[in-house]
Amino acid sequence: MKKKRTGSTPLQKLWGGRFTGATDARVEAFTQSLESDKRLASYDIAGSCAHAAMLAKIGILTQAEARRIIRGLRAIGAEIKSGTFDWRVEYEDVHMNIEAALTERVGEVAKKLHTGRSRNDQVALDERLWLRDILTRLSGQIGTLQRALVELADANKEVIIPGFTHLQYAMPVLAAHHLLAYVEMLERDRERFEEQRKRVNVMPLGAGALAGSGFALDRAFVAGELGFTGVTRNSMDSVADRDYFVEFVSAAALVGMHLSRLCEDFILWMSQPFGFIDISDAFCTGSSLMPNKKNPDVLELIRGKCGRLYGNVVALLTVMKGLPMTYNRDMQEDKRPVFDSADTLEGSLAVLAALVPTVRFQAARLAQALQNDFLMATDWVEYLVRKGMPFRAAHELVGQAVALAVERRCGLTELPVAALEGLSRVFDADILKVRSAASSVAAKRSAGSTRPQFVRAELQRWKKQLAARMRATNPV
Amino acid sequence: MKKKRTGSTPLQKLWGGRFTGATDARVEAFTQSLESDKRLASYDIAGSCAHAAMLAKIGILTQAEARRIIRGLRAIGAEIKSGTFDWRVEYEDVHMNIEAALTERVGEVAKKLHTGRSRNDQVALDERLWLRDILTRLSGQIGTLQRALVELADANKEVIIPGFTHLQYAMPVLAAHHLLAYVEMLERDRERFEEQRKRVNVMPLGAGALAGSGFALDRAFVAGELGFTGVTRNSMDSVADRDYFVEFVSAAALVGMHLSRLCEDFILWMSQPFGFIDISDAFCTGSSLMPNKKNPDVLELIRGKCGRLYGNVVALLTVMKGLPMTYNRDMQEDKRPVFDSADTLEGSLAVLAALVPTVRFQAARLAQALQNDFLMATDWVEYLVRKGMPFRAAHELVGQAVALAVERRCGLTELPVAALEGLSRVFDADILKVRSAASSVAAKRSAGSTRPQFVRAELQRWKKQLAARMRATNPV
Amino acid sequence: MKKKRTGSTPLQKLWGGRFTGATDARVEAFTQSLESDKRLASYDIAGSCAHAAMLAKIGILTQAEARRIIRGLRAIGAEIKSGTFDWRVEYEDVHMNIEAALTERVGEVAKKLHTGRSRNDQVALDERLWLRDILTRLSGQIGTLQRALVELADANKEVIIPGFTHLQYAMPVLAAHHLLAYVEMLERDRERFEEQRKRVNVMPLGAGALAGSGFALDRAFVAGELGFTGVTRNSMDSVADRDYFVEFVSAAALVGMHLSRLCEDFILWMSQPFGFIDISDAFCTGSSLMPNKKNPDVLELIRGKCGRLYGNVVALLTVMKGLPMTYNRDMQEDKRPVFDSADTLEGSLAVLAALVPTVRFQAARLAQALQNDFLMATDWVEYLVRKGMPFRAAHELVGQAVALAVERRCGLTELPVAALEGLSRVFDADILKVRSAASSVAAKRSAGSTRPQFVRAELQRWKKQLAARMRATNPV
Amino acid sequence: MKKKRTGSTPLQKLWGGRFTGATDARVEAFTQSLESDKRLASYDIAGSCAHAAMLAKIGILTQAEARRIIRGLRAIGAEIKSGTFDWRVEYEDVHMNIEAALTERVGEVAKKLHTGRSRNDQVALDERLWLRDILTRLSGQIGTLQRALVELADANKEVIIPGFTHLQYAMPVLAAHHLLAYVEMLERDRERFEEQRKRVNVMPLGAGALAGSGFALDRAFVAGELGFTGVTRNSMDSVADRDYFVEFVSAAALVGMHLSRLCEDFILWMSQPFGFIDISDAFCTGSSLMPNKKNPDVLELIRGKCGRLYGNVVALLTVMKGLPMTYNRDMQEDKRPVFDSADTLEGSLAVLAALVPTVRFQAARLAQALQNDFLMATDWVEYLVRKGMPFRAAHELVGQAVALAVERRCGLTELPVAALEGLSRVFDADILKVRSAASSVAAKRSAGSTRPQFVRAELQRWKKQLAARMRATNPV
Repeated sequence: MKKKRTGSTPLQKLWGGRFTGATDARVEAFTQSLESDKRLASYDIAGSCAHAAMLAKIGILTQAEARRIIRGLRAIGAEIKSGTFDWRVEYEDVHMNIEAALTERVGEVAKKLHTGRSRNDQVALDERLWLRDILTRLSGQIGTLQRALVELADANKEVIIPGFTHLQYAMPVLAAHHLLAYVEMLERDRERFEEQRKRVNVMPLGAGALAGSGFALDRAFVAGELGFTGVTRNSMDSVADRDYFVEFVSAAALVGMHLSRLCEDFILWMSQPFGFIDISDAFCTGSSLMPNKKNPDVLELIRGKCGRLYGNVVALLTVMKGLPMTYNRDMQEDKRPVFDSADTLEGSLAVLAALVPTVRFQAARLAQALQNDFLMATDWVEYLVRKGMPFRAAHELVGQAVALAVERRCGLTELPVAALEGLSRVFDADILKVRSAASSVAAKRSAGSTRPQFVRAELQRWKKQLAARMRATNPV
Repeated sequence: MKKKRTGSTPLQKLWGGRFTGATDARVEAFTQSLESDKRLASYDIAGSCAHAAMLAKIGILTQAEARRIIRGLRAIGAEIKSGTFDWRVEYEDVHMNIEAALTERVGEVAKKLHTGRSRNDQVALDERLWLRDILTRLSGQIGTLQRALVELADANKEVIIPGFTHLQYAMPVLAAHHLLAYVEMLERDRERFEEQRKRVNVMPLGAGALAGSGFALDRAFVAGELGFTGVTRNSMDSVADRDYFVEFVSAAALVGMHLSRLCEDFILWMSQPFGFIDISDAFCTGSSLMPNKKNPDVLELIRGKCGRLYGNVVALLTVMKGLPMTYNRDMQEDKRPVFDSADTLEGSLAVLAALVPTVRFQAARLAQALQNDFLMATDWVEYLVRKGMPFRAAHELVGQAVALAVERRCGLTELPVAALEGLSRVFDADILKVRSAASSVAAKRSAGSTRPQFVRAELQRWKKQLAARMRATNPV
Repeated sequence: MKKKRTGSTPLQKLWGGRFTGATDARVEAFTQSLESDKRLASYDIAGSCAHAAMLAKIGILTQAEARRIIRGLRAIGAEIKSGTFDWRVEYEDVHMNIEAALTERVGEVAKKLHTGRSRNDQVALDERLWLRDILTRLSGQIGTLQRALVELADANKEVIIPGFTHLQYAMPVLAAHHLLAYVEMLERDRERFEEQRKRVNVMPLGAGALAGSGFALDRAFVAGELGFTGVTRNSMDSVADRDYFVEFVSAAALVGMHLSRLCEDFILWMSQPFGFIDISDAFCTGSSLMPNKKNPDVLELIRGKCGRLYGNVVALLTVMKGLPMTYNRDMQEDKRPVFDSADTLEGSLAVLAALVPTVRFQAARLAQALQNDFLMATDWVEYLVRKGMPFRAAHELVGQAVALAVERRCGLTELPVAALEGLSRVFDADILKVRSAASSVAAKRSAGSTRPQFVRAELQRWKKQLAARMRATNPV
Repeated sequence: MKKKRTGSTPLQKLWGGRFTGATDARVEAFTQSLESDKRLASYDIAGSCAHAAMLAKIGILTQAEARRIIRGLRAIGAEIKSGTFDWRVEYEDVHMNIEAALTERVGEVAKKLHTGRSRNDQVALDERLWLRDILTRLSGQIGTLQRALVELADANKEVIIPGFTHLQYAMPVLAAHHLLAYVEMLERDRERFEEQRKRVNVMPLGAGALAGSGFALDRAFVAGELGFTGVTRNSMDSVADRDYFVEFVSAAALVGMHLSRLCEDFILWMSQPFGFIDISDAFCTGSSLMPNKKNPDVLELIRGKCGRLYGNVVALLTVMKGLPMTYNRDMQEDKRPVFDSADTLEGSLAVLAALVPTVRFQAARLAQALQNDFLMATDWVEYLVRKGMPFRAAHELVGQAVALAVERRCGLTELPVAALEGLSRVFDADILKVRSAASSVAAKRSAGSTRPQFVRAELQRWKKQLAARMRATNPV
C-alpha cells in the first residue's frame, strides 16, 4: 500500500508561487473535480507519455529523461488501475495528482514534463481520447441492439399486428416491419456517432493555456503517437472548444428518444388491454403490495432515463452559453453531463439488447385484435380505386360504410351487402372478401412497405450488414 | 462488522411469489436505486416507525410487536449511520433493504410491517420528509449568504461604483445598493422555498399502491407523529405526484440563476480592465502554466453549476411528461436531479457565503473609473428639467453635448462653456458643477433609489430582519 | 384612417442626441420588439396615465398638462384597440411608439411625460400588469376544467375501471377517483399561480434606468392608482429582475405536465385495445387516407404542447443566465416564451374543458376488462391478513396462487379450491368469493382511498368549493 | 381577388365520411396548423406535382389528368406566392387547403391526386424539402460571417490584445488569432449542417399513413424528380421520424452558443473598462433616459437569442419523447421550434455579418492594457527553462516574482534586479528585456499558436478557402 504523501501547504500547489494565502479548505473541496475526472486517468497518462516522447524528440528532454518519466507514468497508471493510487483532493484534479505522484517517484525530472503545455490543452486532449473510445463502444452496442431486434423480427416474421397512428388502429402491419423501423432509427444514431469522430479525432495539445508555446513542439508527432488524424489549427479555439461534448450529448439524447419510443411500444404491448407480447420474468419486477404484478420496470426506467439525457444537453449548453474566450472554469462542469450520458446509454443499450430476445408475441391475443376489420378500410378504398373511382370519392364512401358499421355496432365486413349497396352501387359482395389482415399486408406494393417479401428482403439485408460490421470491428 | 446475509434466489425478493424465473443480474444492477436512495434511509425508518405505531393503534400489531419492530428499525438506523449496514443490491432499494434486515433481526413479526402500505406511498413519504428538511436547510443557507452580502455592503457603504446597463457605463451607484439588489433576489428565493413547504408537508402514506387500503389506517395519526400538517386527499394522486420535486428543482434553478449573475458581476469586477475588487487568495486558484494567474475559479464554477441546475429541471419534467396514472418506474429517475440540485445549491451557497467577506473594493481603480463624467449625463438632464425644459428636449440637448465630447475626445465637464452655450442658451457655467459621482447618488430622491440615506436605511432593515430570522431558527 | 407619421431620421429616435450615424435598417428590423410587445399597449398606457397623474401630484406637470397627456394617451389606447394605430418599427417598441404618437397628438407637453422614468422600469411595470391579469385568467380557466372533471366524475360515479401502475393492471378503482386525482393536481397549479401573485403585484416604476430618480416621485401613489400592494425596494433589482416571468413559465410547465398525463390517460382509454371511453366526433379528426380513423388529435396536441411549455422554461432561464447587473438587451427575449406559455395554456385549458363533458365511459368494455380477477390479488392478501397471517407471508402465498393461475392460463378465482389448499391450508372456499371489483373498492377503508362513500364526499366537497370560488370571481 | 369558397359543413372535410358530428369550432382553431405550415406551401406543391407525374407514369392517372392537376397546382402556387390565395382554417393545414382549392379549380380529377399517399408521408416530404433548402441557406450565411471575421482579422493583423483565461489577463495574443478561433467554430457548424444533409435528402413519399401503399408507386421516380439521393427504407420509420428536425435544432443551438460567445467578447471589449473596440453607431441604440448611452443592443440580442435556440431543442425533444409508433398528432408541434430556430439563425447571422466590418480596434486603450507586464510571466518561465531550469521550478520562481510585484504594487519588469536576484541567482538583468507584447507573440513556435507568421498563413488559407466555396455556390 502506498505511503501517504504529506501535507497540503500552499507551496505544494503546482501553481502556488504567486499565492501568499493558503487555499480555503472549502474551496479545495468545492473546486476539485477528482471524482469525475479520475476516469480520464489512463488517457491523461497516455497523453503525458506522448508529450514526454515529443519533448525528447525536440531536445527539451534527453531520451533518458523521457524514458524515466514514461516509466514513472506507466507505474502510476498501473497503481491507478489496481486501485492503490493515493488520490489527493488538495491536488485538485487528475492532472496534478499524476504530476505530483510522478515527482515523488522520479524526482526533479518530473518538473520538466509540463513544459510547453497547460492543463487547458491537457484536459482537452484527455477528453477527446476518452470520447473517441466511447464513440466506438456505443457504436458497437447499438449494433448489438440492432442485431437483437433483427433476430426478434426474423423469428416472428409471420406475425401480423395492428398498426397504429394516433394510438388508434390504422392498418395491419408485420411485427417485423415495426421492429425494423427501430433498426433504421438506431442506424442513424450510429451514423451520427461515426460522423462526430472526425471532429473529435483532432489533437489539441500544444495550444498551451491559450496562445500556443514558445517551444517548437512537434504536435504532429504527438498526434501520430496517439492515433489522431491531425492537429487543431487555432490554439485559442483548442482550449475554448467543447463542441465535441455538446455534439455527443445531443446525439445521445436522440438515441435516448428512440429508446423511449421503443420502450413505450413494448410497455403498451405488454399492458393487459393490449396483450400483444410477454417478456421474461427475468426482466420484470414485482410489487411489494400487489402479488399479481409483473411490471416492465426495465422498459420504464429506460424511458425515464430520457430525462437525464435531455437534461444533460441543457446542462452543457447552459454552461457554455456566453462564455468569453478562452478557458473558463465553468467548463469543468462539462464532465458530469457527458459521463452521465455515456453511462446511461451504455446501461440502457446493454440491458435492452438482453431483454429483446425474451419478447414473446402472443398469437391468440393478436388474432383477436386483428378481427377488428376497420383495419381493412384502406384496403376497401384501394379496391374501389381499382374499380375506377377517384381516391377521394372512394375514401368518402368507405367512410360512410364505417359510420354505418359504427352505428350498427358491427364490423365492416358484417354489414349486409344490401346496406353497402344502399350507399353506392359500386359496392358488391366481392368487397366483403377484403377482410384478412394477411391479405392486407400481402397487397402492399410500394417500396419500403410492410409487404412480406419486402420485409424479408430487409431482414436479409440487415443480417448481412450487421454481421459484416461486427466482423469488421471484432476480427478473429 | 455485520455478517453478510446470504443468497439472492428469486424467492428472497419480497415480491417474488408469482415469479418463476430469477431476475437477470443485469436487471438487478440496472434497476436498483440504492446508491441514490440510501440517503433517504433515516426518513424511511422514521416513516416505518410511525407506521408501526399506527398499526398497533388500530390493532393490526400488538403493542409488543410494534415496540419490537421499532426497536429493530432504530438499531438498523444506527447501523446505517455508523456505516456498518450491509446494503444488498439484489434488494433493489432502501425500503426492501431495511425490511429484509428487519426480518433478519426481529423475525416473523417484521413481515407484518408492510401491512397497508406499498413502496409507492412509502417512497413518496420518504421524499417529502427529506425535502422538508432540505427546504429548511437551504432557507438557512440563503439567510447566511444574505447576511454576508449585507455585511459587505455595510462595511463599504461609502463606496461608489459605476452602475451599468448593457454593460455600458450608466450612472454612479453605491456598491451597497448593488449588493442589496442580490439580497432582494435571494429573499424571493427563500420565500419560494417557504411557500413550497405547505404543499410538501402533507402526508401520503396510506395511499397504498394507488387505491388506498382495506385496513382502516389512521393516517392522521401518522401525519401527527411525523409533523405533517395534514394528509393527502386522493390516493392515486398521492403516488402519481412529483410536483413537490418539480417545484423544488425549478425554484433551485432560479436561485442558481441569481448566483450566476452575482458571480458574473464579481468576475467582471475582478478582471484587470475593471479592477473594482480583489478577493482573497484563499478563494482563487492559479495556473499550471502561467505564474501570473490568480483566477476566480470558485465564482466561475458556481456560474457553471447553473448548467446542472437548469438541466435538472429538464430532466425531471421530461421524466414526468405524458406518464399515465399512477406510479411508473420512470419516476425512480426523480432522485438524481433532485438530490443533485440540493447538493449543488448547498455547496454553492456555502462557499459563496465564505467568499463574500473576503471581497475588497479597490478605491484607486474605482476613483479612476468614476472620472468618466459621461456617467453624469442623466444628472445634467435633470438639471435642465429643473430649469423648466421638458424632459425629452433636455435629453436631446445633453445627447448633443455628449456627441460633442465624443468628437473632441474629452469629458462632458471638460467641454468649454462656450461650446455648450453653442448648443443651447439654457446651459451656463453652473452645469459644470454637476460632476461628482457622490453628488449624483446624493441627488437621488425616489424611494428604492441609490440615495445614501435610503441605502443605509435598507441596510438597517435587512440587518434587523436577518438577525431576527436567525434567532427564530436557532434559538439559544 | 390615421395619417402616416413622417420620416425616420436618427434625430427622431427619442434617444438620438448623441448619435451621429443613422441606425442600420437591418438593426431596426432585428432589434424591434413591436410584434411581441404590442400586446402590452393597454398596460403601457395605464402605466403612463398613472405616471402622469403622479408627476402632476408632485408638481412636475401642472394638472392641466397631466389631463392633456392622459386624454391623449386614452385616445391612443382607443386607436390601438380599434386597430387604426399606425405602428412604426423604427420606434423600436411599444413605449416609443406611444410616446411619439402622443407628441404628435398633444405637442410639446408630451416631452415631459418620460420625466423620472426609463424604458427599463416602464417595461417591468407593463409586464407585471399583464402577468397579474394572466394569473387571474388562468386561475379561472383551471377552475373551469376542474368543474368539468368533477361533473364528469359525478355523472359516472358508479363506474369502476382497472387501476394501473406501470401500465399493468393493479386494482379496481372508481373512474371518479381517477378523475379527481387530476382535480387535485390542478388545484396545486392554481395555488402556485395565486402565490406568485404577491411577488408580481409590486410596483417597479421609479427605479429609472437602474439608480432611481433625482425627482421625488411618489411611487406609492402610482402603486395605489394601479392596484399594486406595494413598491419594489431596490431600484437595481427592479430593472434587473425577471423572476416573475421565470416563476410563471415554470408553473405553466407544471400545468402542461399535468395536462399531458390527463391526455395520455384519455388517449390510452380511447385506443381500441382499451376501449374504456369514447369522445365526441366534434373533438376528433380523421385521416386523409384511412376512412376508418377517428383520432384524438386534440388530446395529442395538448400533450405535444408540453414541448413548448418546457422549452419556454429553458429559453427564459438561458436568457437570464450569467447576465450582469442590471438591464441587458438580452432580456427583450423574455416576452416570446412568456406570451407563448400563456397562450398555450389558455388554448389547452379551454379546449380540454370543452372536450371533457363529451367523454363517455364504455360500460361493456369495462365490464369485460374487470373480469381479469388478478386485479383482486391484493384483496386476497388482505383477506389472509385478516385471518391472522403476516402481510409478507400472505403476499408470498397469493403470489404463488397467481403463478399457478398464470401456469394454468386461468383466472385466480378459477383455480380449484384443492389447488389453493395445496399451496396452504389457510385457503378455503371462502376466498373465491373475493372476486368482484365492486366489493374491492367497497372494501377500502383508508382516508383518501377509492371507497365509494369517500369519493362521493370528495365530489361534494369539490362541487361546493369550485362553485364558491366561481361565485367569488364572478359575483352577480 | 379570389372568391371566398363556401361553407364548413363536416362533409367538406376531406376525411369526413365516417363522422356524424361536425367538428367543434374551438377544435378547428386549436388543431389547425396553417399559420406555421403555410411556409411549406411551395414544397407541398412541388411534391404534389412529382406525385402526380408518378401516378401518370404508373397508370393511375392519364397523362392528361396529370397535366391538368399539375397545371392547377402551379396556378395555386402562383396565387399563394402573390398573396391572393384564400386560406381556410377549417381545412386544417396546408395540404388540405391546396387539395380543396385544386378540386375547385380542376374538378373531379383532383380527387385522384391523393391516391397512394397520406398527409403523414406528405408532410414528411415537405419538411425534408424545406430543410434541405435551409441547410444550404444557413451554410451560405455562415460563410458570409466567416468572411467578415477573416476580413476584420486581416485588416487588423498587427493588433495585439491581452488574451484571457478565466477573464483574467493571461498572455498577449493577436486580435486576428482570437477572431480566427471563431472562424474555426463556425466551420464546424457548417460541417454539421452539411453532414445532416445526407440524412435529410432521402425521399419518404410512398410510406402512406404507415404501412406503404397497395399501388406500385414508383418512389425512385419521385425521388429523382425532387432531387433526392434515394428513398426511405421503412414506411413506419418514414412517418414516425423527426430525427432530421432534432438534428437541425441541436446543430442550430450549437451555432447559437458560438454566436453568444462572440457577442460576449465584443460586449466586453466595448465596455468602458475594456475599451478595446468601438462599433458603429448604426449598430447601437441609445437610452430613453440616459443621453450618454450607446448600447451594443444587437450583440446582446443575439446572445439572448441563445435562449430560444436552446429552448427549441428541449421543445422538440420533449414532443418526441415516448411517442408510440408511428405518427401522433403531437408531432405537429415540430414546426414552431424548427422554423423559429431557422429564422433566428438567419437573422442573427445576417446582422452580425453586417456589424463585424464596423468594429474598430482602439489602439490607445490596447497599448495601455498591454503595459500590464504580468502578461509576460509565461515568457519569463520559458526564458528560465531555456536557461536549463526545469519547467515547474521556473514556474514557481516566476510566481514568487509575481508575488513580490503584487506586494510592491509594481510591474514585473519594474522589480529591481537585486530583488529578483534575491529570489534566485538564475535571474539577471536580461530578463527585464522580456517585456513587450510584440516579442511575446513573436516568440511563439508551436503550430496553431498566435505567432504572427502562422496567423498570417491561416488568414491566407481561410481567404482562399472561403472564396473558393463562395464561387462554388454562386457560380457566375
